[in-house]
Amino acid sequence: LYTETVMDHFTHPRNVGEIPDADGVGEVGNAKCGDIMKMYLKIKDDRIEDVKFETFGCGSAIASSSMATELIKGKTIEEALAVTNKQVVDALGGLPAYKLHCSVLAEESIKAAVKNYYDRN
Amino acid sequence: LYTETVMDHFTHPRNVGEIPDADGVGEVGNAKCGDIMKMYLKIKDDRIEDVKFETFGCGSAIASSSMATELIKGKTIEEALAVTNKQVVDALGGLPAYKLHCSVLAEESIKAAVKNYYDRN
Ligand code: FES
Repeated sequence: LYTETVMDHFTHPRNVGEIPDADGVGEVGNAKCGDIMKMYLKIKDDRIEDVKFETFGCGSAIASSSMATELIKGKTIEEALAVTNKQVVDALGGLPAYKLHCSVLAEESIKAAVKNYYDRN
Repeated sequence: LYTETVMDHFTHPRNVGEIPDADGVGEVGNAKCGDIMKMYLKIKDDRIEDVKFETFGCGSAIASSSMATELIKGKTIEEALAVTNKQVVDALGGLPAYKLHCSVLAEESIKAAVKNYYDRN
């Protein structure tokens, strides 16, 4: 049902937690299941220096966000904004079709966190 | 958003895992989010000697199943079948309304596991 990469990121999620002095924070909700994803960005010279996430969502949401944070860490804001849901799912080796809605939280929360960063500055 | 009891059972779920020589196994899916819950029962003299669960579901599903397994452990089959979704949610101190569908998995998987036990015997 789930690839080894999904199981790895589910059981050992990367970048879980909070960044208390984050430069941008994004929180998005999932209309389908009611879950919430919170993304914290530390930004320096237009680059994602650090990123962490918190969620109460399911295994697919955790694995997707874990992978997404790995994909954007160290990248420029522009590069981070270009990361799509499809890239995250591909990097995971795929997700069951009925769990794709969970992975959308990752992309949306990155965009919300960057928007929050721009709003602050 | 979530009670201390929910957070406790989410971060330290009780009875997680598999019982390889289970006497009854129940697997149910959630139509709303596509998540799956698997419940294993070890039964002796009509009593739930041991119970474990596995899921890829969200925090509410994990907390509900953790609490449900605690509620039925050591009980008779009849008592276990009488455990309702409402009792599980009450024992957790409540869940947000839009996450109630997650807790239903716990009750349904117990009933499915007992049914599987009867089918085998
Ligand atoms: S959202 Fe699927 S079990 Fe909670």
